[in-house]
Formats: sequence, C-alpha cells, structure tokens
Amino acid sequence: MPFMACLAARLIQKGSPMTHSMLAAIDDRRTTNMFDPAGHLTDAEIEKLVHLATKAPTSFNLQNWRFIAVRTPEAKARLRSMAWDQAKVTDAAVTFIICGQLADHRTIPARLAPSVDAGFMPAEVPSGWEGAAGSLYDNQPQRQRDEAIRTATFGAMTLILAAQAMGLGSAPMIGFDADAVAQGFGLSETDIPALLLAVGPAAPENWPQKPRRPLSDVLDFV
Amino acid sequence: MPFMACLAARLIQKGSPMTHSMLAAIDDRRTTNMFDPAGHLTDAEIEKLVHLATKAPTSFNLQNWRFIAVRTPEAKARLRSMAWDQAKVTDAAVTFIICGQLADHRTIPARLAPSVDAGFMPAEVPSGWEGAAGSLYDNQPQRQRDEAIRTATFGAMTLILAAQAMGLGSAPMIGFDADAVAQGFGLSETDIPALLLAVGPAAPENWPQKPRRPLSDVLDFV
Repeated sequence: MPFMACLAARLIQKGSPMTHSMLAAIDDRRTTNMFDPAGHLTDAEIEKLVHLATKAPTSFNLQNWRFIAVRTPEAKARLRSMAWDQAKVTDAAVTFIICGQLADHRTIPARLAPSVDAGFMPAEVPSGWEGAAGSLYDNQPQRQRDEAIRTATFGAMTLILAAQAMGLGSAPMIGFDADAVAQGFGLSETDIPALLLAVGPAAPENWPQKPRRPLSDVLDFV
Repeated sequence: MPFMACLAARLIQKGSPMTHSMLAAIDDRRTTNMFDPAGHLTDAEIEKLVHLATKAPTSFNLQNWRFIAVRTPEAKARLRSMAWDQAKVTDAAVTFIICGQLADHRTIPARLAPSVDAGFMPAEVPSGWEGAAGSLYDNQPQRQRDEAIRTATFGAMTLILAAQAMGLGSAPMIGFDADAVAQGFGLSETDIPALLLAVGPAAPENWPQKPRRPLSDVLDFV
C-alpha cells in the first residue's frame, strides 16, 4: 500500500527513537488471522500480557475486568466449538475471554483504598467518586453494560499492543455464543464476555493491514 | 510506588530498545487530570492522533467511528457545560467526542472494497463478511450498540497511547450528558458518544499511576 506507507511516513513526526518506534508500532499494527500452531507462551508470558493490559484506564479506577487465559488444547477446542469453529481459537498459543463486569459503584472504595494508602489520594475521594458513580450506574442497566464493554475493550486494546511489542500477533473476535461461553467457562451473571482475543506467534502468510477510511470521513473539527 | 516499579522491572523482558520502550510506555501510562491550559495542538497534530487511532481494529473492518475534535475556546466551554463542568475539558488542548456508530452490516462492502482493490482480499470476501455480520447485528439493537462502544473504545485506547508517545497527557471521561452532546454537536441517531477524551500537554502536579488489583484477582488460567 504505497499510499498508506507514504501517509505514515509523512505523519510520523521526527522525535526520539523511542517515540518514533512506538508511533510506528501503532501505525503498523495489523490483525493476525493465521497463527503458528506450534507457537507457545509460558504462563509467565501470559501474566506479563495481562499485567500490561490492566494498565489501561477504567472509569473511577473500577478495574471491572476479568481475563480468562484459555491455553490448554482441551479448553481451546471447547472454546472453538462455541466460536464459529474459527481455527485461530485453537491455533493461537492462547485465546483470552475478556470480560467486563457490570459496573457497580459499591466496589469503588476497595478499588481506591491502595491509592489512599499510597498517600497521593485524599481520604475523602473514594466516597465522593462512589457517589458520582452511583448517580451514573445505579438502576441503569444499559450504562452498567456500556461500562463493562468499555472496560474490557480498553484492556483488550492495550493487550493487543503489548503483544505486538513482544513480537506476537493477535486477533480480536466477536463471533461466539456468549451464553455458551458464560456457561462453559463459569462466568458469573455480572461478567460480560465482550470479546475473545487470540494471541501468539503469527504464521507467515497473513494479510497486510487493511486500508482505512479517509481521515476526512471520520474526523470533524469544532 | 516502589512495589509497582519493582514488579514492572521484573516483568519487562529483555529485548531490543524498541520493544523495551513500548512495553515500558504501556506499563507507565497514567491518566492526566491537570492539563497545562496554555497547551496547544495544531490541527495537523490532531489529525496525526486520529490517523493513529484509526489503526485500531474493528469488527469486520467496520470502522464505525467518528472523532469530533473540540478545540476552540467557545466549543470547549460549551462541551464543558455538558460534562459536569470538568475543568480538563477546557484546560486540555483538545477534547475529543469519540463516537461509535451502531453497527450496520450493509456498510461492509464499501469498507472492504479498498482491501479487494489492493489485491490481498479475494473478491467474494466482502459479501461473506456482510452475511456473517448481518446474522449478528440485524434487528439486534443491543449488539449494534455493544459494537459501537467497542469500536469507539478501541480507537480511544489507541489514541491514548499515541498521545503518550507524542509526549501528551490524556483523560478519558464518561461524566457527560450524552443527549445534550448529541444535540449540541450535531450527532446523528446512529452516533453513540462513548466517551470524551481530553488530550494535551500535562501540568506538573498530576497524581502517579493508581495501583491495580492483584493479578490473581483478574486472571484465570484454563
């Protein structure tokens, strides 16, 4: 795609090698559909990916997410049967079920206590944020669900870029039976499986990055 | 936070300087609440941020997003009045209204035509994906909305990390009146304002990164 490459070259600002490499990595990301079925990740590598994913932001620092790392052949096959039989579910080294949890303002004091303990957050902040969050979420099931999807997706996108930085491919998927996944992998009623994310070493034959809509179609200035 | 720093140092794998810097950037990200009110971004810099945001993945390459860059003092003040009077809306150089659009499978052929034209996507793929997407979204308003939230959040997270790579702070916000924003900024009925995102040079006095839940609370292996 010479046009895209040219655009990228023009848009990447001159800066430090670090800045340049991170911008280039974001600019170059593409979805992996073909994984090396012999690829493997250790549990420590999976923990590293999720550690980085949880550095994503969440509203009120709710951290209302749950990552289920499906990485044994048996469990991957079971998940694949609930996900349109997509080969990448089993070919990837690990396929995450990424859940957001229905937003619950009552969890906020416990989630913020370490920030108070660390000394930078005034002690009255958690109850104030709990009240603000309650005014948004309490008896508002659509907003609770929106928050679950947002949180899961913030974590998923961060995991995707962390995987790329570790030399791994990734593929987000929404083609799966959410009820079957919830039942088959023991999710609670408040765990919303927002997407699956296959991660692992890529096979060589993947498509290039798909062209994007012109910027003028998606960006307005006010 | 010596514990977190220690954990980060332990988890960051040895690798190339590029790999290391990108992982460290993800690990170090924190939300900016205090912006330098004198900070400014050019429209070209804003375009660069959104260009990078659109490199995020979307289901079926739907690209069902819309970025409204609110950057004039008048428009920022108007948006602030709809967003709990949060100072960061006006102090930041730009505050984006990031919308996802209700998923519509009929848009897929046009969104994939450039991939067919580029020669890597077989010509029969777009109609196949349109059918698969139709089976998910058609007459399924909750799924259409979930997809809007997912798409907007994928783009927002990518924009957050792009901003960080450009040396800018950012703050996602959900405390706003969605109906007022839709009416005041001319959104269509299919544009769902999923979040606001303030971006700009940070003031010096921001909080450090807030501590995260223990990994064992959010990660399960299967």
